[in-house]
Amino acid sequence: MALTLTPLINIPLIQSGDSLAGIVLASLSKTEIEIQDDDILIFAQKVISKAEGRLVNLAAVTPSPPALELAQATEKDPRLVELILQESKEIVRVRPGAIIVEHNLGFICANAGIDHSNVAGAGKQNEEYVLLLPQDPDASAKQLREFIFQRTGKRIGVMIIDSHGRAWRNGTVGMCIGLSGLPALIDERGWKDLFDYTLKITVVGVADELAAAASLMMGQAAEGTPIVHVRGFPYPLTEGSLAELIRPKHQDMFR
Amino acid sequence: MALTLTPLINIPLIQSGDSLAGIVLASLSKTEIEIQDDDILIFAQKVISKAEGRLVNLAAVTPSPPALELAQATEKDPRLVELILQESKEIVRVRPGAIIVEHNLGFICANAGIDHSNVAGAGKQNEEYVLLLPQDPDASAKQLREFIFQRTGKRIGVMIIDSHGRAWRNGTVGMCIGLSGLPALIDERGWKDLFDYTLKITVVGVADELAAAASLMMGQAAEGTPIVHVRGFPYPLTEGSLAELIRPKHQDMFR
Repeated sequence: MALTLTPLINIPLIQSGDSLAGIVLASLSKTEIEIQDDDILIFAQKVISKAEGRLVNLAAVTPSPPALELAQATEKDPRLVELILQESKEIVRVRPGAIIVEHNLGFICANAGIDHSNVAGAGKQNEEYVLLLPQDPDASAKQLREFIFQRTGKRIGVMIIDSHGRAWRNGTVGMCIGLSGLPALIDERGWKDLFDYTLKITVVGVADELAAAASLMMGQAAEGTPIVHVRGFPYPLTEGSLAELIRPKHQDMFR
Repeated sequence: MALTLTPLINIPLIQSGDSLAGIVLASLSKTEIEIQDDDILIFAQKVISKAEGRLVNLAAVTPSPPALELAQATEKDPRLVELILQESKEIVRVRPGAIIVEHNLGFICANAGIDHSNVAGAGKQNEEYVLLLPQDPDASAKQLREFIFQRTGKRIGVMIIDSHGRAWRNGTVGMCIGLSGLPALIDERGWKDLFDYTLKITVVGVADELAAAASLMMGQAAEGTPIVHVRGFPYPLTEGSLAELIRPKHQDMFR
């Protein structure tokens, strides 16, 4: 069985309040893809955030004294730094140009995942607007999944992804920031291998592996396609959560 | 255009000296897949290592004093630790059960990527054998690619992947450890987004994204399929190298 990832076409620019599930079903109706049980739909974070109204006008943000200080150290806009601090539990590393944080959602990422690009505000000064991550991506995924079940009767998985930088390696990769209806991890401890030698420590980050695959098909710039349809995920669609993917701080050798 | 990943079936157990390219072509001839220009073949590290004779009998390894010391601190087999030290440039972190190193190949990984599982030795004591990573995975990939071009006339990409743990997140994911004939990174700096806002810092680790996707389709245990055929990679198949994916130590905030 093959894994097939198909970017959906004809996705309009998303506005606050849009029904993404409705938009997906409309897009699918123009393709040869008919949604089936065990399919998965993967959404770029930015379309979820836009639909959920997470756009913030920087002109309306007043930086606190800690934000002003950190902005100076990192050569960043103090209003953006104020939002980064509000969206984070903890600062992990700071360098000119880079603020690495533990996001309120639990994962480590740069700039609290706040995005400048592909964001249009109400007026002409597009660059004054930034986009925060969804407030509860697992819940957003669950809502989309339930809507699609109601409309189609099909039990699918839904995942929300973002592009993250990594320790040690160049290049961003897509990672899961929320999911519903598919596993985050597959625990292979105790499985036997080809020689009946028991695998000892393998827990596989299958949601992140699928997130990376979907990210590859989304592109980043003008030709971006923020929603990807997946067929052929090789594991049963049990329930997962973002929390499973996050290593507790006390177990992390690289914090 | 969709991305399709198909695990190849009927791959026999690989022995030292086997022609993997010949085995792949034989496997493909039993499927509906006819190799085309711009296809990519992805190999699990373990089959490359086996074909290249990287199996080591632990009974033949004499641990050095530093290996004996590190073995005690980490509660590991001193002979295995000796091999880990030989295969590494630098120890990055140590904990009971875990030795995180900078491998001689440049990347950060646990236990120098030395694998106990799915490895059979000559005799009954299978567990005495371990498998080292290929000595030059970019070169291994290039050789496979050229062999396939000679046999089929098709210009494909070849990548070798392994499963790595990560900072901050639970679960291993597939990562590129060598490639030929496809890009490792796509540099999107300077591209315009939907609103003509210039993207600032996006360099995408496309080889790692594809490695993660392929890993998902390989499985880990008894039903493992170590070779995956890919069609629909969304970028031109320019030449890449493992070195591009490795962040230099002085630029790394998490070493």
